Amino acid sequence: MNTAVAVQSTPEIDFWFDFASNYSYLSVMRIESQAAMHHVRVRWQPFLLGPVLQSLGYDTSPFVAQKEKGEYVWKDMERQGRKYAVPWRKPSDFPRRALLPLRVATLGANEPWIGAFCREVMQLNFAQDREIDSPATVGEVLEHLGLPAQQIIADALTDANKLKLREQTERARAQRIFGAPTFFVGTEMFWGNDRLDDALAFAAGAP
Amino acid sequence: MNTAVAVQSTPEIDFWFDFASNYSYLSVMRIESQAAMHHVRVRWQPFLLGPVLQSLGYDTSPFVAQKEKGEYVWKDMERQGRKYAVPWRKPSDFPRRALLPLRVATLGANEPWIGAFCREVMQLNFAQDREIDSPATVGEVLEHLGLPAQQIIADALTDANKLKLREQTERARAQRIFGAPTFFVGTEMFWGNDRLDDALAFAAGAP
Repeated sequence: MNTAVAVQSTPEIDFWFDFASNYSYLSVMRIESQAAMHHVRVRWQPFLLGPVLQSLGYDTSPFVAQKEKGEYVWKDMERQGRKYAVPWRKPSDFPRRALLPLRVATLGANEPWIGAFCREVMQLNFAQDREIDSPATVGEVLEHLGLPAQQIIADALTDANKLKLREQTERARAQRIFGAPTFFVGTEMFWGNDRLDDALAFAAGAP
Repeated sequence: MNTAVAVQSTPEIDFWFDFASNYSYLSVMRIESQAAMHHVRVRWQPFLLGPVLQSLGYDTSPFVAQKEKGEYVWKDMERQGRKYAVPWRKPSDFPRRALLPLRVATLGANEPWIGAFCREVMQLNFAQDREIDSPATVGEVLEHLGLPAQQIIADALTDANKLKLREQTERARAQRIFGAPTFFVGTEMFWGNDRLDDALAFAAGAP
């Protein structure tokens, strides 16, 4: 008789996002508190949505390319912001360049400050209508979190870390990601902030 | 002093759908029971999604044109079917021709049988993988509902009713509809089965 006890591992969710993506904003603001309630661990997977969309034939965000859908999306974001109590101001520049904060998120993906960093960057973009790609802005966010801003930015700008973000974006393509946010629980893909709760329930083993 | 009492009118939701659309299927199956719970009246607005998508630059469904998204959508439909307890089988022909049932729905949009008719047609397409565009199939559905099938099909095929569906599709374009299902509460647009509950809550006057 086998008396071995099965080891219960913590369920995990992979969270693929880009700071330029407005629906990623809603998930960035919500995921840590929602995941905690499901006892699920979040694995932060920053990537560059632009090159992925380009490989699918889009020159820019579908919300810019498709005028009717674009108009609707800003209306939807207003309502979704109210629904989730997430502050919202339509950015005057969309999609915003976000290479530097994505590099910092790549560097810090497994650090305890990753969630707080992402929430602050996202709020600059989608609640305060501020640019998010300069060392000054990213440095301000890191300092606000009590982190060594200059050192982190320097580490984020090494060739090794730049390559890591490019490889991460290749992984997104290989996993057939076509938008953001995208969640994976194992190989099960869930697309869009609208599926965050379903994905967490799935991760937690709900029927 | 003005003693007039405000007349409370029944809140209404306009429900734009096409029998070829898989996410419309979920809403067709759910909307009457959900709307009843919110005390909202449903106004059925059948239209031809194909010409609307064509005017936006799509030759076919985005779920066919965009391979990655298409693969995902069938997976998502499986899960959504389970979530809403709606039977689901991936159609072997997608998007299916649905001109005749859409003409019947145009004719019967304000009839008491419209909801039941739409649910039966949708289940043939998305639960039983059957064609839905022949007089035999549409007649079978109408007879099953105890309706004068031959007369209704003849009325649906008059020039006046054909024109009505074309005009309805023009209205969809004019209202900047870009997909299905789409809901309107007054001028407020909600896109996708994922927004049905929000749209009904909005119609019912929820904050």
